[in-house]
Amino acid sequence: MKKGLFITFEGGDGSGKTTQINLLKDYLKSKNIEAITVREPGGVSISEKIRCLILDNQNTDMDKITEMLLYAAARAQLVSQVILPALNQGRAVICDRFVDSSYVYQGFARGLGIDVVQNVNNIATQKLVPDITFFMDIDPTTAMNRRLNCGNPDRLESEGVSFQEKVYEGYIELSKMFPNRIKTINASLGIEEIFSDIKKHTDILLKTFEI
Amino acid sequence: MKKGLFITFEGGDGSGKTTQINLLKDYLKSKNIEAITVREPGGVSISEKIRCLILDNQNTDMDKITEMLLYAAARAQLVSQVILPALNQGRAVICDRFVDSSYVYQGFARGLGIDVVQNVNNIATQKLVPDITFFMDIDPTTAMNRRLNCGNPDRLESEGVSFQEKVYEGYIELSKMFPNRIKTINASLGIEEIFSDIKKHTDILLKTFEI
Repeated sequence: MKKGLFITFEGGDGSGKTTQINLLKDYLKSKNIEAITVREPGGVSISEKIRCLILDNQNTDMDKITEMLLYAAARAQLVSQVILPALNQGRAVICDRFVDSSYVYQGFARGLGIDVVQNVNNIATQKLVPDITFFMDIDPTTAMNRRLNCGNPDRLESEGVSFQEKVYEGYIELSKMFPNRIKTINASLGIEEIFSDIKKHTDILLKTFEI
Repeated sequence: MKKGLFITFEGGDGSGKTTQINLLKDYLKSKNIEAITVREPGGVSISEKIRCLILDNQNTDMDKITEMLLYAAARAQLVSQVILPALNQGRAVICDRFVDSSYVYQGFARGLGIDVVQNVNNIATQKLVPDITFFMDIDPTTAMNRRLNCGNPDRLESEGVSFQEKVYEGYIELSKMFPNRIKTINASLGIEEIFSDIKKHTDILLKTFEI
């Protein structure tokens, strides 16, 4: 069924994903490819409600398995309601975070392990895998400082820099596990330089796709 | 670790579970066994919030995989925060619905299949299985009429009697799959007669347990 292009962005908060996603959307538009952008967890009404539950600072006693299942539930709704229909219509979908975030945050940083996360997420995503994933690689302390300048931290941001370091290590491990799909982008460069790198990979992908 | 007794009640809404759970709790107390009662989905703060999401009549476009994952998330929190700690302290836990409800509602009635539900719930429950399960067997139309007399229907009750009939068939199938664990109770009898049956099975179980 899937005819469209599925692109995901990964990396810690403050790594500049949103800026690059908007640039890529405009770039695809300039090539007459209609792209929709969605964010995880959230993107549709039910998933946004789940997102509120996950990020609520009151829920400090949330079990790590509960957290992983809630992310998967939000993802399942987004996949079935938005991502798959768009891809089946031949559109491009750019997603801010996807299963890789669960591998890294719940699998690595919380210690649930990759197998458990994979098992649940194969069901949640109906086995949908991105065509390409951009990992925005930036030192976690720099990213955290950028982010904290933006306002009060949510439940996950409140975990502090040692958690963000585990997350960062997780992304490095993951990019070794899926070297063909995950492209590591030096996100400490300027916006234009970063986008030039993303554009290069996207152009290669577009040649293999009839979209 | 587990030293306590884990008892679950299953059956459609209106099958009289709550009444029997309270009678069983008092009976165990008379035998000097401290029992706690919990309900699914819910039972703890995070799970109650998930319950609201699942049962909210506004969420009519909820995907069946999302629904299954939300039930599993609520269950994971209840297991880790309440059920396992209580069992490890040697208490009895009586639970109004558990994994069997997901087998029947999501696996059978919604058509997701048993394997998918089992895969996710083995993770959610940390492989905890009830020592005994009472299936309150009552004609689904009778149960539904009883229940509708109690107020406005929630999202699942609004599905109508044909959905409840599928649920009922699911329970019949499930009790054939797990004949040792699941005890079918004729729930169309009077309260005292029903409880007499439940007490009989409980007494047999207590003999095998040092609680």
